[in-house]
Amino acid sequence: MPPIVAVIAPGMMGSAVAKRLSTAGLEIRTLLAGRSAESRERAAAAGMRDVAPGQVADADFILSIVPPGQALGLAERLAPALRAASRKPIYVDCNAVSPETVLRVAHVVRETGAGFVDGGIIGPPPEPDSSRTRIYLSGPDAGKVALLERYGLSMPIQPGPVGAASAMKMSYAGITKGFTALGATMMLAAMRAGTADALVAEMSVSQPQLLKWLTTQMPRMHGKAYRWVAEMQEIAAFVGADRPGAGLYEAAANLYEVIAADVAGPREETKLLDAFCDKARTA
Amino acid sequence: MPPIVAVIAPGMMGSAVAKRLSTAGLEIRTLLAGRSAESRERAAAAGMRDVAPGQVADADFILSIVPPGQALGLAERLAPALRAASRKPIYVDCNAVSPETVLRVAHVVRETGAGFVDGGIIGPPPEPDSSRTRIYLSGPDAGKVALLERYGLSMPIQPGPVGAASAMKMSYAGITKGFTALGATMMLAAMRAGTADALVAEMSVSQPQLLKWLTTQMPRMHGKAYRWVAEMQEIAAFVGADRPGAGLYEAAANLYEVIAADVAGPREETKLLDAFCDKARTA
Repeated sequence: MPPIVAVIAPGMMGSAVAKRLSTAGLEIRTLLAGRSAESRERAAAAGMRDVAPGQVADADFILSIVPPGQALGLAERLAPALRAASRKPIYVDCNAVSPETVLRVAHVVRETGAGFVDGGIIGPPPEPDSSRTRIYLSGPDAGKVALLERYGLSMPIQPGPVGAASAMKMSYAGITKGFTALGATMMLAAMRAGTADALVAEMSVSQPQLLKWLTTQMPRMHGKAYRWVAEMQEIAAFVGADRPGAGLYEAAANLYEVIAADVAGPREETKLLDAFCDKARTA
Repeated sequence: MPPIVAVIAPGMMGSAVAKRLSTAGLEIRTLLAGRSAESRERAAAAGMRDVAPGQVADADFILSIVPPGQALGLAERLAPALRAASRKPIYVDCNAVSPETVLRVAHVVRETGAGFVDGGIIGPPPEPDSSRTRIYLSGPDAGKVALLERYGLSMPIQPGPVGAASAMKMSYAGITKGFTALGATMMLAAMRAGTADALVAEMSVSQPQLLKWLTTQMPRMHGKAYRWVAEMQEIAAFVGADRPGAGLYEAAANLYEVIAADVAGPREETKLLDAFCDKARTA
């Protein structure tokens, strides 16, 4: 019998993952209590069915795909239903959290008798007819979850215990989203100093790849900045509070907090970032 | 008559700039009091002549090329000789310092009656037969200094006042050297977490350009980390202490301090960085 999968929540990534699985014929469950009309529409379009927590616990696999700040909370919220379930599912935490946080989530889940696998998502949400998304899996039960590869997901198994997939995700996001934070800081500073044209001209000659990467990523960042605050804090924890590099990610969290407030409010910073990227495009 | 140029100090960059000018036939002066045997050799090979401060002040141009923490100190040290000079030179601060710092240097220099131009060096030290080095110049007297282009240097004039060339240099170095700091932090964290192989494999597929950039830059960073501490602090000042991005560069300064101490001592961090880069090369 094909497995039943619960995907929580129906955000951009969760609904896109669900859509691939439902398109491949799987039954996909989710929780919609308290969700916005937009989330409900996304869930419906992805073939996700709203159920009670007990029916989530009754699935074969539960994929937790939420903003990093909510990873532990979701496990705690589902724990009573998991504890009550007669047949225990495997809970996969796919979130951008530190190995330390994922171990805390694992502890909550395993106490209910359910299985636990660490997951780390790399790449944009999968599209109906193409996917560059990889969900790395680690831990003793990773092989059981990788069975979902038959249904349109790429799920490489990463050697190592629970925590290994999250560690890889942290270091990858620390490079890409950290670099985006640096780039935003320098674009803003150059715009304010009136030297953006000179910076664009110089980088076009000596660092064309970095310039292109940053100006391609920057507009995509605006709408995600609010989610990246907690992710940067997780990366700081991954580095280790006693190491100097942790400060890079604490500062990046602060920066994304400012950008997120700007996106929701005056849009001064984001306009400056757009103006910089326009210069780079026409250079 | 061809101009006489003083270049201080004969470090890697200073001696390479001096060598191009002396090869083009210019008389190059420098100060060697208190310098190491290595510096003296480099100076001699670059055709630099050791003189007294009075003869430095008597040159047509003085190029200050020192670690960023010494930029202001050099101007203060030369001020008495500049004040005493009957024919005033133009002093060019080519260092990686914030616009704020360069204005302080300009103030010290201009009080002596000498001219002042802001400079910002982008690129590696020029080589005898090829150069990718550009010394950006800004300020009212930039055109007079750009005369040195006839003698083998590339000196684009950047529109804007004293401070503009430094601002551009700050934002450029903030991207390149900031990214190197992020990359080092994530390489070290991945090595310690045992997930470096997975990170290299994933980046080889989805971020090959960033992986190549970082692993090419990393070995070149080790020997320069001690110099980049002050440079990162200057970039933090350029961002502005009240902005969240400044914390990125304060943290980068701390990181480079740790790396510099490691290079001079146990070489534990640098060995981990080398091991990561080896994995990337053989991936």
